[in-house]
Amino acid sequence: MGQITFSDVVAKTKTVNGAPADFGRRFIIKTGLAASILALWQTEPSWALEKRMSDNKKHDTLPAILTMNDVSAVSPALAHYTAEPLLNGLWKRPELSPRDRSVVTVAALIARIQSIEMPYHFALALDNGVKPAELSEIITHLAFYAGWANAMSAVAIARDIFHQRGIGIDQLPPAKEKLLLLNEEVEKQRATQVSNNFGAVSPGLVQNTTDLLFRDLWLRPALAPRDRSLVTVSALIANGQTGQITYHLGRAMDNGLTQEQASEVLTHIAFYAGWPCAFSALPVVKDVFEKRRKGHHANFQSRSTIAAPADGSLSANHHRYSASHCHPRTYD
Amino acid sequence: MGQITFSDVVAKTKTVNGAPADFGRRFIIKTGLAASILALWQTEPSWALEKRMSDNKKHDTLPAILTMNDVSAVSPALAHYTAEPLLNGLWKRPELSPRDRSVVTVAALIARIQSIEMPYHFALALDNGVKPAELSEIITHLAFYAGWANAMSAVAIARDIFHQRGIGIDQLPPAKEKLLLLNEEVEKQRATQVSNNFGAVSPGLVQNTTDLLFRDLWLRPALAPRDRSLVTVSALIANGQTGQITYHLGRAMDNGLTQEQASEVLTHIAFYAGWPCAFSALPVVKDVFEKRRKGHHANFQSRSTIAAPADGSLSANHHRYSASHCHPRTYD
Amino acid sequence: MGQITFSDVVAKTKTVNGAPADFGRRFIIKTGLAASILALWQTEPSWALEKRMSDNKKHDTLPAILTMNDVSAVSPALAHYTAEPLLNGLWKRPELSPRDRSVVTVAALIARIQSIEMPYHFALALDNGVKPAELSEIITHLAFYAGWANAMSAVAIARDIFHQRGIGIDQLPPAKEKLLLLNEEVEKQRATQVSNNFGAVSPGLVQNTTDLLFRDLWLRPALAPRDRSLVTVSALIANGQTGQITYHLGRAMDNGLTQEQASEVLTHIAFYAGWPCAFSALPVVKDVFEKRRKGHHANFQSRSTIAAPADGSLSANHHRYSASHCHPRTYD
Repeated sequence: MGQITFSDVVAKTKTVNGAPADFGRRFIIKTGLAASILALWQTEPSWALEKRMSDNKKHDTLPAILTMNDVSAVSPALAHYTAEPLLNGLWKRPELSPRDRSVVTVAALIARIQSIEMPYHFALALDNGVKPAELSEIITHLAFYAGWANAMSAVAIARDIFHQRGIGIDQLPPAKEKLLLLNEEVEKQRATQVSNNFGAVSPGLVQNTTDLLFRDLWLRPALAPRDRSLVTVSALIANGQTGQITYHLGRAMDNGLTQEQASEVLTHIAFYAGWPCAFSALPVVKDVFEKRRKGHHANFQSRSTIAAPADGSLSANHHRYSASHCHPRTYD
Repeated sequence: MGQITFSDVVAKTKTVNGAPADFGRRFIIKTGLAASILALWQTEPSWALEKRMSDNKKHDTLPAILTMNDVSAVSPALAHYTAEPLLNGLWKRPELSPRDRSVVTVAALIARIQSIEMPYHFALALDNGVKPAELSEIITHLAFYAGWANAMSAVAIARDIFHQRGIGIDQLPPAKEKLLLLNEEVEKQRATQVSNNFGAVSPGLVQNTTDLLFRDLWLRPALAPRDRSLVTVSALIANGQTGQITYHLGRAMDNGLTQEQASEVLTHIAFYAGWPCAFSALPVVKDVFEKRRKGHHANFQSRSTIAAPADGSLSANHHRYSASHCHPRTYD
Repeated sequence: MGQITFSDVVAKTKTVNGAPADFGRRFIIKTGLAASILALWQTEPSWALEKRMSDNKKHDTLPAILTMNDVSAVSPALAHYTAEPLLNGLWKRPELSPRDRSVVTVAALIARIQSIEMPYHFALALDNGVKPAELSEIITHLAFYAGWANAMSAVAIARDIFHQRGIGIDQLPPAKEKLLLLNEEVEKQRATQVSNNFGAVSPGLVQNTTDLLFRDLWLRPALAPRDRSLVTVSALIANGQTGQITYHLGRAMDNGLTQEQASEVLTHIAFYAGWPCAFSALPVVKDVFEKRRKGHHANFQSRSTIAAPADGSLSANHHRYSASHCHPRTYD
């Protein structure tokens, strides 16, 4: 397909001040870890560029798109940090798969409406094995967990990418489908606790949380609970919502996210949400890890009965979904 | 005017996977609760579309605009959640008027620079009874309470909508006009407390807070104090600024916001700011409700002497404006 | 050069309702404090406008640009507040230089992706004495401290401004250059503390913090440590990341930021990040000031050995860089 690896590109680019300053407009940089943050449409082969340009005439909502040349024209250092520590370093660390890194990145971008990097990272996510149905469901999930307009900003980008790749409605999760089985006991426990705490403060919010989130959204099979949790935790960290991390990180680990993976989410997200968000999450994450080591979560019916497959997919719709909540301050 | 209700539209649309997948480009979805988050210009009658297109040539800053078809092309589920629980559910709940819901929504969008939904929701706000003068004043208020650039992003959208609707400067609040009467005693108490706490830390900020906010902005008659408080509280919740909620929610309730309405603000804003922001606000709101029930606010001169009219308007400019502050940590 | 001062402009504009309602498209408002938040390309002389228009054809990513007329068409009051308390008031206060105000403003805009004001403020920053190399380095710094996409959004704007002004790569900091000398003892202390606290929680993040931030980014000579700290603190306040302020404000003051300047940063940033962010920072800043007054920082090797020059530049590359950290909760 004319795709070349990032190192191929680097080898062919001129170097200015020690950083790659010209990535060559003829080379496609689309593969896996190639060019993480940039939507390098302009570096594609002419046939692809033309196709896209004509597409864009019909769907001209793609935001400003940057090439490595643009970055170098403002900051050779930023181009260097992008090429080396980020693309050639972070994205290649084995602690998280490229697919998981894409899930974390996409969630962070949507949570913060960082539109400029959405085109590239949505495309990269698909290349990294995130299925169109999963990307669709991530956007839907973040309507509830980051804001309706955040999801709509993502829709504007994803619509064009789906169109460009010929991804039709047949590849997307239907509006309604058979839900995963609910662990009624665990959900009842959660609902009771939230209701006792806040039922009188905002009955509408508490009711919607039960009906729309925990008895509907979270049970949709198009995104594995482990991935849904990964999206949620990533959005919380990226938005500095530390007060909500404890519950959802515990839930994520119950859903199959390992401690090593959770640890690496922090390493990864620091680049996309900024170091301060990662550092603000550190003490909370530390506390969750320590409490789980001491077995606090054993007091509850824990351990999800589903083990999310390595690729995050769910082949069947009838899993028993048991998310526990390990800590007293259980919110949504 | 060719406007039809949302349920009319739903009845005429084809259903794919249980969700409305095609809202029909010939039907206008502009009425009240019809299509909350979407700027459905493309679904308007051709005469309206043409008018708008030609307008847009002169004022082409409207951001990417989405139709329900666009949403369905990325997520049939999100289209369904938008149509049913959000538009047909939330917006119809009686605990808040459509006008108040628009005030909360507009405030949340501006506070988070969620530009993609501004065109539709600014238009919907006007349709729901928010006066142009009030929308103007909400934007001005949020320059101070959410950031100057947030207000300017809103200006770029509102400018076009005002132009399209023929709303001229004669319908807008003047730059300077006769202010509401200040409750000097209450303001003195607030100013003294803040000055004692922070006067030595940032004298400029403390002085500006008194001169620009509490002896000027808050006294402008174009927005009723109750509505100004509603805007402020909505922006604080939407930005996760929980540390500032206690004072401003107390002030809002002094200004006439009922506990039931405040409770419903949380239910509503969860959709637009995301569940985590609503849940982070819950314990703070609970605390305010409880302290007021125990009469803590009775220690202060409380209860605004103005009862905001049901439509939020102020027919006269000479109200006595008495905002109390119920809690020790009184900030701005 | 055809530039006139802001008061010249005000004198020539018609007044509507007490606020300047028409700033006249023939007058340039580009000087120093003239029109802080607005990108008033349309008010420039025709030769400049034409030049820019033709430039924009090649680089048409500049976002919606507002004139004072646009602001007045939505809110005469906001135009007034912009002209008087903000431009004619805040920006003229002597507690911070116009250059420092530009550094704070640019950092806040990038930290919050407030794109609409970036074109004007990037240009104003250059006019106020921020060197192109410094603006470049501020953007690079905020990739790490606010998020990669935040920096990329700034790149899209700065690229066009650099192009318009003929600022080439020769005026930008190289990707790699001789670093400032590190105070090994202080850095070792910081690294040990963070490692003890969080090394087991996220080893990757802790390692990157040492290698990429404190032994690389912070030692790049293109931005004086005092200015780098000013950018960091401004971004933290603007994003409400109060948990990270203590360490970085202490570091900023060690790097030469005076208490009066730090105090005025709060006064200034309230306009650009909103009052709630400034007020949320107040108690933390107060605490830092008080602890330093009591000499808590004397326990550590404090006081940077470099005194940042008044213009923030560094004429040589071989300064000894000693940032201390004054408080136990030392993060990144």
